[in-house]
Amino acid sequence: MQLDKRNIGLNFNESKKAVVKVWAPQAEKVALKVEGGEPIRLNKENYGYFSVVTESIRPGDRYWFQLDNDKQLPDPASLAQPDGVHGASMAVDLQYAWNDLPWINPPLNNYLIYELHVGTFTAESDFEGVEKRLDHLKDLGVTAVEIMPVGAFPGSRNWGYDGVFPFAVQTSYGGPQGLQKLVDTCHQKGLAVILDVVYNHFGPEGNYLSSYGPYFTDKYHTPWGNAVNFDDKDCDGVRDFVVENVLMWFRDFHIDALRLDAVHAIKDYSAVHVLQEIRQQIDLLMEQTGRRYYLIAESDLNDPRYITPLDQQGLGMDAQWVDEFHHALRVSAGEPKKGYYLDFNGLADLTKSYRDAYVYTGAYSAERRRKFGKDASQHPGKQFVVFSQNHDQVGNRLLGERSGTLYGFEMQKLMAAAVLFSPYIPMLFMGEEWGESNPFYYFVSHTDEELVEMVRQGRKKEFAAMNAGGEAIDPQSENTFNASRLNWSLLEIPPHQALFQFYKKLITLRKTNAVLAANDRLAVNVQLFASKQVLLLDRGMQNHNDHVFCLMNFSKQPQEILYPSDIIMTDLQLIIDSASQKWYGTTEAPDRWKEGQEIVLQPASFVAYSTSHD
Amino acid sequence: MQLDKRNIGLNFNESKKAVVKVWAPQAEKVALKVEGGEPIRLNKENYGYFSVVTESIRPGDRYWFQLDNDKQLPDPASLAQPDGVHGASMAVDLQYAWNDLPWINPPLNNYLIYELHVGTFTAESDFEGVEKRLDHLKDLGVTAVEIMPVGAFPGSRNWGYDGVFPFAVQTSYGGPQGLQKLVDTCHQKGLAVILDVVYNHFGPEGNYLSSYGPYFTDKYHTPWGNAVNFDDKDCDGVRDFVVENVLMWFRDFHIDALRLDAVHAIKDYSAVHVLQEIRQQIDLLMEQTGRRYYLIAESDLNDPRYITPLDQQGLGMDAQWVDEFHHALRVSAGEPKKGYYLDFNGLADLTKSYRDAYVYTGAYSAERRRKFGKDASQHPGKQFVVFSQNHDQVGNRLLGERSGTLYGFEMQKLMAAAVLFSPYIPMLFMGEEWGESNPFYYFVSHTDEELVEMVRQGRKKEFAAMNAGGEAIDPQSENTFNASRLNWSLLEIPPHQALFQFYKKLITLRKTNAVLAANDRLAVNVQLFASKQVLLLDRGMQNHNDHVFCLMNFSKQPQEILYPSDIIMTDLQLIIDSASQKWYGTTEAPDRWKEGQEIVLQPASFVAYSTSHD
Repeated sequence: MQLDKRNIGLNFNESKKAVVKVWAPQAEKVALKVEGGEPIRLNKENYGYFSVVTESIRPGDRYWFQLDNDKQLPDPASLAQPDGVHGASMAVDLQYAWNDLPWINPPLNNYLIYELHVGTFTAESDFEGVEKRLDHLKDLGVTAVEIMPVGAFPGSRNWGYDGVFPFAVQTSYGGPQGLQKLVDTCHQKGLAVILDVVYNHFGPEGNYLSSYGPYFTDKYHTPWGNAVNFDDKDCDGVRDFVVENVLMWFRDFHIDALRLDAVHAIKDYSAVHVLQEIRQQIDLLMEQTGRRYYLIAESDLNDPRYITPLDQQGLGMDAQWVDEFHHALRVSAGEPKKGYYLDFNGLADLTKSYRDAYVYTGAYSAERRRKFGKDASQHPGKQFVVFSQNHDQVGNRLLGERSGTLYGFEMQKLMAAAVLFSPYIPMLFMGEEWGESNPFYYFVSHTDEELVEMVRQGRKKEFAAMNAGGEAIDPQSENTFNASRLNWSLLEIPPHQALFQFYKKLITLRKTNAVLAANDRLAVNVQLFASKQVLLLDRGMQNHNDHVFCLMNFSKQPQEILYPSDIIMTDLQLIIDSASQKWYGTTEAPDRWKEGQEIVLQPASFVAYSTSHD
Repeated sequence: MQLDKRNIGLNFNESKKAVVKVWAPQAEKVALKVEGGEPIRLNKENYGYFSVVTESIRPGDRYWFQLDNDKQLPDPASLAQPDGVHGASMAVDLQYAWNDLPWINPPLNNYLIYELHVGTFTAESDFEGVEKRLDHLKDLGVTAVEIMPVGAFPGSRNWGYDGVFPFAVQTSYGGPQGLQKLVDTCHQKGLAVILDVVYNHFGPEGNYLSSYGPYFTDKYHTPWGNAVNFDDKDCDGVRDFVVENVLMWFRDFHIDALRLDAVHAIKDYSAVHVLQEIRQQIDLLMEQTGRRYYLIAESDLNDPRYITPLDQQGLGMDAQWVDEFHHALRVSAGEPKKGYYLDFNGLADLTKSYRDAYVYTGAYSAERRRKFGKDASQHPGKQFVVFSQNHDQVGNRLLGERSGTLYGFEMQKLMAAAVLFSPYIPMLFMGEEWGESNPFYYFVSHTDEELVEMVRQGRKKEFAAMNAGGEAIDPQSENTFNASRLNWSLLEIPPHQALFQFYKKLITLRKTNAVLAANDRLAVNVQLFASKQVLLLDRGMQNHNDHVFCLMNFSKQPQEILYPSDIIMTDLQLIIDSASQKWYGTTEAPDRWKEGQEIVLQPASFVAYSTSHD
């Protein structure tokens, strides 16, 4: 595989000729049709590829492929679909005059992630809108922006997981140049960019892949139907397609990390798993570019093999999401035990997650009806991404409620601190930093009427099953989309402003406090005062005496906790107190915590003391 | 999991009471029905199990289970089905007065495997018949008898892969005690016993498993339909069922090694793969019994992870079959390149397999239509089982021809030596040691008429597709089974007798020659004289100067080969010459091979010279 340029689809070489390559292993002949031009026959190559070099197409021109004598189709590796997923592909030159040269992707341990959805982040619903808010993110202090999938999807309203052109940046967001410019600006502002990519399935509308080749296999079933073909006959073309996509984001878009959607639905019994192949290629690309790239998996398997290096027979991902931390935290905060929350026992499991990342490491899960998971305690904290909200956990609720409407103000602060002072990589979901009260609904803008109706009825059924009362939200309605947009004006209103300041303070502390910045998971001790519903998270550093003691009171009563004299023999200095008037609270914790002294924790509060006086 | 006794089905404890346990996670109530007795209600336990201890059943009694108010069914963990797969289960006491105490399972490196099918090995078609022929196997010199699956199947004629009661030894073979007695005798004669077990599917007739619980999942498809459920909801009961089965063979039947059928069709995305769980339990059992047990996988994935130890994130199998060695050898010997042989380039691939075990270690396979496999060169030779025939490779031919009818006499000797002097674990298929000329057909004895017709039509179709001419063999016919039986009287007839003596000599040399016995794969060099169709396999030993030079002439002409002076500087001593009159040949190779000397290899011949003069 060549690393220095895209080897699939339509690309322009240095002399600005179009180099065209398409995989169609079942076709006898393939022609390139340029709008207003004559068909250009491609040459058949090995392994199902067809290719041609031509001067008959220029950047901006629309084109299609015609397989044998069938109707013309968009390019599976299209870089832009200006007329939508059913329309022509557009020739794009990926050359871009980058201004981010001094940029260095920080160590993963320094990542503080902010997940956003381009369509609902701002009124503009595009990359330029995001760009205008980057200063807000800098002010907040996060270090990495995670962008929900941008691959072309039907219409202009979609979370992104219905994308059908993984190489084509959604036109309504600003297309490929729009994304390049946004990344360039992020880097200049010192922000890393994570892109969410989906290789476990493709969307239901505008999916022309099967016309080109066996992109799917019935060997495995996933929640989205037949699995993407990573190990059945003719899988090499599909694997190349995905690897080329990964390479493109890093090389041509300067993306710093990819978030790989639901890797548990990537079924692959090859001797070299496609995730391993991706890792190998990325490692080579890193050598070549001198840049650092990360792969972060969404995994629902509690299997540390995914985040184990290749040379230890792992799948080579750098990190993974830990939904179980979220579930345990939410139940601790009062989330009713329904659905997948049934498996989680609040503080006991939150304690487990602070210790072991995974809650299930072999125990029986009632929800999964099986023993589940495996110990991952030897993996560093930087390999686990935790959060109190994300697009799924909010948007998959029938009413799309965020924490801002589900939890009281004090509890929101406690949850923020529980995440940001964890020994893992914290992730925020857009708007949580001010307690956004708008919902984040599930929304689509399909054009296939039958599909629209199917999605609508599906949601209605789920709604009815929950006995929620009232009417189901219509995912197809533009109102649903608009209602999900952030309400930035809340930022000016106390207590939202205070919450934002509190987030800023937590982030500053995470960066500047030596213990928190070291993020040493192996120096973590957790103590649960079960009857008080208080958790004491003792953060330390190996080969170092400093500690940060985080006290979390999840109960509705004030709780007294005695100085932890078994651990430490010095006065402790208050570094943050969520109940303080500074953060729109009412009480103040003592500045110092001394031996023999009990401190009183306010209901739903977070207090941290440090041994160091910095 | 308790290791010292079976924890599933019906077992007798020390006070000879029956301890009954059945997994039926969807049932409300379960009753044990003993023939002629009143139903006995089982108690509901956790995780879908029901159990009871009762004195109302004795060994030899017939029994069923009744789930809720449905009809009575045999026990999935039945130890005997005396009236067939649709009949009652029979209570069996597995206690057996073993006489094999001095027996020690040899190191895997010393295994020389002989695969046999109980039904067609002898006229008796049972374990007693096998027992009568053990002296023949001792005389031949093999060290391990591999028995094709014995789990109860419909009727009395089946390869064993249609078994539906993995714990019940086929009654027509001699039932559980019959197998225990056979193993006991094997051990007393110094033979290890490998049992072939099938966990990737269950047979189509008499399969009552789904009445008990979700033994299957539609998450994955296999060639036999829905996969066995190793990672979907309620998989724990299925995993326990399989692990208990593995433990039983080792503990209660003193089996030395299991051959796990088609592990590539065991689909499991659990954090702990069921093969890993099996390995863990076997390791514990080994500690407890002080015996050694091996797990040998049939794998079609060319993925060394299967034979990598658990502490290196592997699946923990001790060894695996290498069909690719067989394919390369067969094509070298003149097998027409059709079907899966299309992928194999004779001697070039045989050379590769001597070097790398796998032929495909990442190259494109035309048959699989993908790049396939991974390097396994660091794994020792004892991890790979090779053969020139096996039940599948013979029996899956439409006419079931063995090498004895496919290849000339000289070529049979060459193939035998190619296997037995390989740096891997050799396996013979029953009868090949005398060039059996009877076929080994695919045969069944289903009682379900519809299924019989389906199987029959399937074979006819395959037959027609091959344009073979004549009529398809009827798998259901008793004649087909009888025609597949070994013809032992051939052993008395030259040249069959000579072939047997040649096998004996090869086996003796493999055991007594220091280089061959060391079986050091990392000291192997292979040189291919492509134009001559001659392969020179240079066997050595690390940290040792001795060599054995094996010359294999696969061409139809005599070929001259010069003394390998680049390697060695001493006279070489002939240790075997397949073309010799001793083995019904016509010529004699020189006793010594000296520097500068060319030796002449007869067509289809094998000659080996050694540096040592033992």
